[in-house]
Amino acid sequence: MTDPTFFDVALNQRAHRRLLPDPVPEPDIERILAAAVCAPSAQNIQPWEFVVVRDAELRDQIAALTKELWDSFARDFAKDSVDSAQFADVDRWATGGIAEAPVLVVVCLDTAKLPLEMAGSSLWPAVQNLLLAARALGYGSLMANLPTYAGGALNELLGLPDHIEPQATVPIGRPARQLGAPRRDPFSDHTHRDRWGTAW
Amino acid sequence: MTDPTFFDVALNQRAHRRLLPDPVPEPDIERILAAAVCAPSAQNIQPWEFVVVRDAELRDQIAALTKELWDSFARDFAKDSVDSAQFADVDRWATGGIAEAPVLVVVCLDTAKLPLEMAGSSLWPAVQNLLLAARALGYGSLMANLPTYAGGALNELLGLPDHIEPQATVPIGRPARQLGAPRRDPFSDHTHRDRWGTAW
Repeated sequence: MTDPTFFDVALNQRAHRRLLPDPVPEPDIERILAAAVCAPSAQNIQPWEFVVVRDAELRDQIAALTKELWDSFARDFAKDSVDSAQFADVDRWATGGIAEAPVLVVVCLDTAKLPLEMAGSSLWPAVQNLLLAARALGYGSLMANLPTYAGGALNELLGLPDHIEPQATVPIGRPARQLGAPRRDPFSDHTHRDRWGTAW
Repeated sequence: MTDPTFFDVALNQRAHRRLLPDPVPEPDIERILAAAVCAPSAQNIQPWEFVVVRDAELRDQIAALTKELWDSFARDFAKDSVDSAQFADVDRWATGGIAEAPVLVVVCLDTAKLPLEMAGSSLWPAVQNLLLAARALGYGSLMANLPTYAGGALNELLGLPDHIEPQATVPIGRPARQLGAPRRDPFSDHTHRDRWGTAW
């Protein structure tokens, strides 16, 4: 595969919830993480830490935590806010499907470097780079926050110190099916000229 | 210019604080925003709004707000946390230089769609796409949060309703100088195998 252009990658990013179990070669994982750490952060503080989980037992345990959170609070909320096909997809993923991904990258914030409430613009760009890099190499991925709501339980499972806050869990693997372009409003619906309300 | 690959763009992203005043053609602005809105968001809620500021008077007013914030609280903090060359660069930018950029994209969160405390993973990926897309087209840019701390004053200047929260101001323009690759720790310094503390 030749390297796709930036726009090929960015305009076709999708959330992939069905991934094949085939292992991801380490050089690909490394290329993805090398792109992640090139993201900007406030004063170049680089407050990210990545735990690359491939161990099958750990992945099952992360899936169990995810299911618990899904059942206890996220499921009902999701049921009301997405269509039924999408709900079935998410439901399958949140009740075990996540463990099918051969790699789960748990992206964490080092709160000793930057407090959580100031960290958004210094962490999520790195996660976005990670997702785009995965896509550029032909992998499917997803920005999943649900497992991180397990808080202490996830810290315990992965041996994370107290100052390390898991923020996203990114599954990476070959997509089990190809998805089309993302469904989005045209940018012009959300764009204003100089002042609010002057349509683009 | 041919479209660069994703990795060419991501591995070479830099914060550009000196931009040429040449106007950015509208098709380029549109391509950049079209990439921004392809970013993921929770339940595809797309909580972003973009105000594309090109009016010179408005840019001067945003620069004045930025200078005020810089002088009153950010300057001393920055002086202690970056080296002197970088400080001079930031100081110049924050005390008027920002207005040199021909385009300032104020990226806002629609808090009626998503509350601020849940919005990080649904807004910053779009900002990162915006920065990467600008770079892919040969522009310099920067993820600037400072002007948005002006809060109400920025809302008033741009006529933003109360539920619209400015989160980042992204200057876009041709770089006045070329910058090398970003200075980053190797990803392996921040990467763990399966559990915390197992070096990659």
